[in-house]
Order: sequence, then C-alpha cells, then structure tokens
Amino acid sequence: MKLISFLQAGRPGFGAVIGDDGVVDLGRAFQGRYTELAQVLTDAGLAEVRAVLAGRAADQSLAQLELLPVIPRPGKIWCCGLNYAEHVAETQREVTEQPTFFLRVADSQAGHGQGLVCPRESTQFDYEAEIAVVIGEPGRRIAVADAARHIAGYACYNDGSIRDWQRHTPQWAPGKNFWRTGGFGPWLVTADEIPFGTVMKLRTRLNGQELQCATTDMMIHSIARQIAYVSTIAPLQTGDVIVTGTPGGVGARRNPPVWMKPGDVCEIEVDRIGVLRNPVVADD
Amino acid sequence: MKLISFLQAGRPGFGAVIGDDGVVDLGRAFQGRYTELAQVLTDAGLAEVRAVLAGRAADQSLAQLELLPVIPRPGKIWCCGLNYAEHVAETQREVTEQPTFFLRVADSQAGHGQGLVCPRESTQFDYEAEIAVVIGEPGRRIAVADAARHIAGYACYNDGSIRDWQRHTPQWAPGKNFWRTGGFGPWLVTADEIPFGTVMKLRTRLNGQELQCATTDMMIHSIARQIAYVSTIAPLQTGDVIVTGTPGGVGARRNPPVWMKPGDVCEIEVDRIGVLRNPVVADD
Repeated sequence: MKLISFLQAGRPGFGAVIGDDGVVDLGRAFQGRYTELAQVLTDAGLAEVRAVLAGRAADQSLAQLELLPVIPRPGKIWCCGLNYAEHVAETQREVTEQPTFFLRVADSQAGHGQGLVCPRESTQFDYEAEIAVVIGEPGRRIAVADAARHIAGYACYNDGSIRDWQRHTPQWAPGKNFWRTGGFGPWLVTADEIPFGTVMKLRTRLNGQELQCATTDMMIHSIARQIAYVSTIAPLQTGDVIVTGTPGGVGARRNPPVWMKPGDVCEIEVDRIGVLRNPVVADD
Repeated sequence: MKLISFLQAGRPGFGAVIGDDGVVDLGRAFQGRYTELAQVLTDAGLAEVRAVLAGRAADQSLAQLELLPVIPRPGKIWCCGLNYAEHVAETQREVTEQPTFFLRVADSQAGHGQGLVCPRESTQFDYEAEIAVVIGEPGRRIAVADAARHIAGYACYNDGSIRDWQRHTPQWAPGKNFWRTGGFGPWLVTADEIPFGTVMKLRTRLNGQELQCATTDMMIHSIARQIAYVSTIAPLQTGDVIVTGTPGGVGARRNPPVWMKPGDVCEIEVDRIGVLRNPVVADD
C-alpha cells in the first residue's frame, strides 16, 4: 500500500493511493475513529486499513490534494549522519564505531510538492537524498535480528541542510532544522512491498541533473543496526521516523559548490518507493 | 501564577497551584475547552486562566497528583550547551560566537517527583541544572529587544545526560535523549512574577550536597539572544521550550567523577521558581 497525509480545503487528512491518481480518504472511511496516519501503522492498524480498503473505490484525486510530510508530527525524527563512505570521505570526517545521530523537528519538514524554503539568512541550502524508515510496532532495545518487524514502511527524505548554520558550532541541529527545509514523501510504501534487505538505489536530481546516486548496501550502519541503536536510547513509538543517511555528492563538497536556490526543483528518487519532488522557494 | 501538568487516575490534566497545596483543575474549569497547558500560554490564554481562577477555590491537593513534565509534549525542546564560562572551561571546549544548540525529545523528560531513569547501558548519568524558558506568544525572527514578550514563564530543568553515549560521536543527541532522563518542573512560574532580566541563582544538590551554583548573569548567550537565534531557524510556537544552559560543576568533570545512581535524589533549585526534585531509579 501507498499511504499519504494531506491537506484538503485546509483540513489535514490521511489516505491510501489507489492506482495512479485515486485516493481513499481513510479518515472518512474510518468515520473519524482515526484522524492521522501514525495511528494506523501498527500491524493491527494496517490490517484494519486493508480491510476498510477491500472493494472500496477511490473518492479523491491525488492531483487535487496538497500532500503533507508523510508523518506530519512524528514524536521523534532520528537522522543518521555520515553513513556512506563516499560522504564520510568528502566531509573529511572519520568513520565512527557507533552511528552518528542528530534530531530534526516536525516543523522542519515539507510534503511532496510543497516548497522547500531557502531562508533569508543563508545561500548555503544543500540537498541530501535519504531513505526514511517509519516505525510501526513500538519497541525498546530492539535486537538487530528483530528490527524488520518494527518497520511500517519507507519513504523518500530530503534532509535539506543550511550548511553555514550547521557549522556555527559542532552541533548540527540548527542547520538541520530550518523551517520547511526537509522533504518527506511522496508517500509511505508499506514494508510488505519491499522485502527487508532489498537493495534500493537512491538519487538526487537538481533541475534534472543527477548529483547523488548510491545503493543501500553501501550503508556503513545498516537500517537494522540503526533501529537497534536508537531504540536503546528511548522506546520507538508508532510513527517515529529514522532518516538513514545520505551518500556522497552533496552540494557543499562539490567544486564549485552547488546550492539550491528559489526556482530550482529538487527530486529524490528511491527504487520501489518513487520520486519526492519539491520546488525551492524564497522565504517571504 | 504557578501552572502544572499532572496525571490523575491515569489521565493527563493541567492546573494552577493555589497556596501551598491547592490546585485548580483547569481542564475541568474550562469544561474541556482546553485540555493541556500549552494551549493557554499565549497572552490571551493566560488572561482566560486568570479570569477563570478569580474567586475559585482549590479542588485538588497538590500532594495527591503525579506531576508531569511542565510541558509534556513540546513541539521543540532547544537546549543551549556551553553557556557558562566555568562549564566551557571544565569541558576543555571553546566559547563560540554563536550559541551551541542541540535538541531533546518529549520522551526524554520526567516531571517533578518522577524517577530519573538510569539506563542499563551506562553508569555515567550526569545532572545539569538549567532554567527552562517556555514560549507564550509565537514568533519568527524575534529581535533581542522583543524576546521578553514571547516568554510565558520559567521552570527548573535537569538536562540529564548519559555521558558515554553523548560522546559516541561528535553529535550529543543520543546521550541527551535517554528515556526519562530530563527533569522539568515542578511548575511554570509565569513571566509576570519574574521581571525580565532578574538575576536568578541556580544550583544542583545531589543527596543534599551542593554540586553546581551560579547566577544567570553569568550566561554567555543571554536568554534574549537564545530566543532570537532559535526563532530564526523556525517559528517558535506556544509551548516550545528553550533550556538555557548549565553552569560548571557537572559530575563528569569532577575528580573523581560523580554519577547519579539508583537511590539518589537530585534537586535543581532556581530562585523565584522553586525546587525540582527527582529520585534516580533503576531501569527495569
């Protein structure tokens, strides 16, 4: 299944994509018993979604909805840094025994099609292609061998970064949390459609030019290892998000550097998931 | 006013403290129109609270409520690091032109009286006395001169830190976000009771022994400057929290180091606010 969060006439909702352009409004299908996507991502919730979708026709057109970040208000957004060797090398940092994690907040996200906002304070707005893992079954201290069964599904993520603010101090959080700089979409593809361990290709295209391309088998810390690590810190809850790291080729490390600017279009494509496309807009 | 979030018979609520032990259940007083403290922290909301409290008697006993973190689910918890010269010196780091900020998540917090949980994975559980600023009126790119009018109030914060996990990599987030390691309480004292710029003393006592003591005029980056900085990154929303930094004297930098362990009691006292007291408990 492909599951989305959306705005319709200014009201938030969630649904399932049927075919190329159909959407079933799940808030309506559930008669308000569930009001947001994160509420139905447990195994039992997804079974209910499948049951309610059986034989039901689309009642919305995907093209007419404004998509929101797949999970608009996650309890946590853990982001893994320095997780592909080529990216570690280009940043002149070192591979660490433990994975590097920082946090994003919900406000920093944008849905598919929404503008990524280039702030007034900087011209150093960089893209980062990543795969987002969305948690289904909650858990604490999840073993690597058990990690797969806690994944509700996957989405594309553009971990948009304001590089000068990221480097104000050794803590990256400021540059990683500017308002509406992180794309998250277009939808969640449920884990049953992507067998755990499938090698996926992820890439960035800026105005059609490919700038990043790698496959998930090149990750330094696997998705299972990341789930084990962050779930040791605190329980993972349904709807929590893990953003799993970007490959080499970021704009800051190109010569000359490549920055996103208003008028650009940035696409993150991941095999088996789809294309997350965002215009870059000025901060008015 | 002193405002609290609490659990009563397993249900979350919020209220105002009247005298030494009285509480008005504001959720009940508002007849369910507001259900959590963050909803009434704007200027208009606080005016409504004052109106509803006028002439009303306490309907609860403070001693019989389980207190929650003052704001149980803030949209953002911005934490300022390295903000007192003595602490910068003891960590052998350098003062930076811009303030250092990292993020905590809601799950990492505990209310006054709740256990601070020493995780199985570490013995390096450290205290950090801080003052938390809670945002009232929302705003973006707030000028230093305007910062005061965006503050709803203040609370004590214990920015509990798992030092070995904080140092796994240069990003501190893992060691700053273990489950229920950060105390936040006992209540919010509204800003009208603490004129902006009042010099407050903050201190840590572990099992009665004073281990940190400083005054807010020793901050490197003032509260107004912190509000200006983080509100440039993204809008500050009502109920967002800024934790403003800890003085020298943390356990990790003592010789020998001092770590919190199950059975200990840690107190953070701040003038004009009160005492945040938490037992330290084992992770079962």
